[in-house]
Amino acid sequence: MAVYTDVADDELRAFIALYDIGEVLSCKGIAEGVENSNFLVTTERGNFILTLYERRVAPADLPFFIGLMEHLAAHGVACPTPVKARDGFALRQLCGRPAAIVTFLAGMWPRRIQPFHCTGVGAALAGLHRAGASFGMTRANDLSVVGWRRLFEACSSRAAEVQPGLAGEVEAELVLIEAEWPRDLPTGVIHADLFPDNVFFREREVSGLIDFYFACTDFLAYDLAVCLNAWCFEADGSLNVTKARLLLEGYRRVRPFAAAELAALPLLARGSALRFLLTRLFDWLNQPAGALVQPKNPLEFLRKLRFHRGITDIAGYGFDA
Amino acid sequence: MAVYTDVADDELRAFIALYDIGEVLSCKGIAEGVENSNFLVTTERGNFILTLYERRVAPADLPFFIGLMEHLAAHGVACPTPVKARDGFALRQLCGRPAAIVTFLAGMWPRRIQPFHCTGVGAALAGLHRAGASFGMTRANDLSVVGWRRLFEACSSRAAEVQPGLAGEVEAELVLIEAEWPRDLPTGVIHADLFPDNVFFREREVSGLIDFYFACTDFLAYDLAVCLNAWCFEADGSLNVTKARLLLEGYRRVRPFAAAELAALPLLARGSALRFLLTRLFDWLNQPAGALVQPKNPLEFLRKLRFHRGITDIAGYGFDA
Repeated sequence: MAVYTDVADDELRAFIALYDIGEVLSCKGIAEGVENSNFLVTTERGNFILTLYERRVAPADLPFFIGLMEHLAAHGVACPTPVKARDGFALRQLCGRPAAIVTFLAGMWPRRIQPFHCTGVGAALAGLHRAGASFGMTRANDLSVVGWRRLFEACSSRAAEVQPGLAGEVEAELVLIEAEWPRDLPTGVIHADLFPDNVFFREREVSGLIDFYFACTDFLAYDLAVCLNAWCFEADGSLNVTKARLLLEGYRRVRPFAAAELAALPLLARGSALRFLLTRLFDWLNQPAGALVQPKNPLEFLRKLRFHRGITDIAGYGFDA
Repeated sequence: MAVYTDVADDELRAFIALYDIGEVLSCKGIAEGVENSNFLVTTERGNFILTLYERRVAPADLPFFIGLMEHLAAHGVACPTPVKARDGFALRQLCGRPAAIVTFLAGMWPRRIQPFHCTGVGAALAGLHRAGASFGMTRANDLSVVGWRRLFEACSSRAAEVQPGLAGEVEAELVLIEAEWPRDLPTGVIHADLFPDNVFFREREVSGLIDFYFACTDFLAYDLAVCLNAWCFEADGSLNVTKARLLLEGYRRVRPFAAAELAALPLLARGSALRFLLTRLFDWLNQPAGALVQPKNPLEFLRKLRFHRGITDIAGYGFDA
């Protein structure tokens, strides 16, 4: 939970007056999201989300993120739509930070993942990939293989503080992944962080995808590998094969797989597990004093990594290609 | 900022289904309030606030707080109105905690206090006191003189960690206040914590008072003394005499003062400053490990206490009785 910046009422009122969304009636900091400050703003026209972009989001990337949300929303993806001010711009400044207002999405993210959630998120992810195919901008994935090596080098000397032998195991994994990482899978816009807290449901249906601030251009199947790690494991560390199968089937219903994508999935899943292991390890070892956000346990993803290491083909995920 | 309890989507849906407020569309933890977990819940009928009562709020006091909000709202005070479920009860359980849904108030609390805010808060406080006169329940103020002695005893041995000599100065003040504290001022329901973040404004008008979880039965003028400390000092520690005068004039316009109340105000203001000095000192010295809430500086109220010590009558607050 986090709100890093307090927005004064008079500053907010002047900011909202630049838009055609009526008088601001209320503004409350939302205790969600660890990267930015988010506020639920109620105006005479309804609810909106105001985001102030804080650390980790590079201002140079914001036109990509804003443009992507505009594109996806225009192409039928239920995602926040940036609201343009009267001057036609959606991205501006507030409290010395880049800021944008986006539409409010109904729905809640699921705390306890049921199998039907996996069907829904698979289909929604495929819908995002299809809609993203016509998006004209690109953004390199700075949290892919090259970025993992960089994160590992920043953490390796202290990795043993988290678990003895961790550096050696990660190093070996990284060497293998660097050598075997695919080069020619179908590529496009991916969400890259589609964890349960970024997917809203109403009853059993996906009602919205949020938080596009890791979105980038990369292998579409890598996005699926992220979801496999984010949605299909139980608290005891085991894969729920039913959830994995439903995720893949839900995806396939909207966008068919290339054979190479399915063949690569176990390796992509190892890579995705390594990515979250490394970013969590970095955050764990570099907690700022007085931080308001509790860092997440990196070892959860070490267990997932080890699991995927034992999978040789797509049948290991319960999927019948 | 604080959300202590995460409410699962399915639990919330079942809870909201007990009310006549439509399907829940969204639920977001609010990064405000340090005592309870608050959520902005959007349903088909609009916005509501869901509160889960955490530490410091005694369950036995909840019927008083809920009853008070119902009474005040019914008597014209703009405050959250508890929403009754279909069974007629406003107070129930969620996630193992007492929980209530209240109406959502439009408005924002002022970050930079302007003189007109003080006029508004004075009048709103007097309106609360008048409406509270017909409220049938009572609740002792456990943060009045007896409670201050208890807090002091829990802190005195470590007070020097915050400032050398602090324990001696507070002890002397406490002895004097215990001896001279008034016994026979007009008494009734007071808010007891009407700081700026508990008062919403729309443009220049008060649109709502919130957070009644310190409300109790005590001297009405003590509430005014709390507001004097909360609204009328500048960041450099000096009293803004214009703000103090407008606060008192705003109040008087709605409820005239008894002469004894004005005469007692400097002492009540010392007591109120001591109250916030002591609770902040206690919180400062007893920060739980991994706390999400940054404790506030107790010494701000030591400066205010010293200021009031130099005031002999109401003219010291710029007020012409």
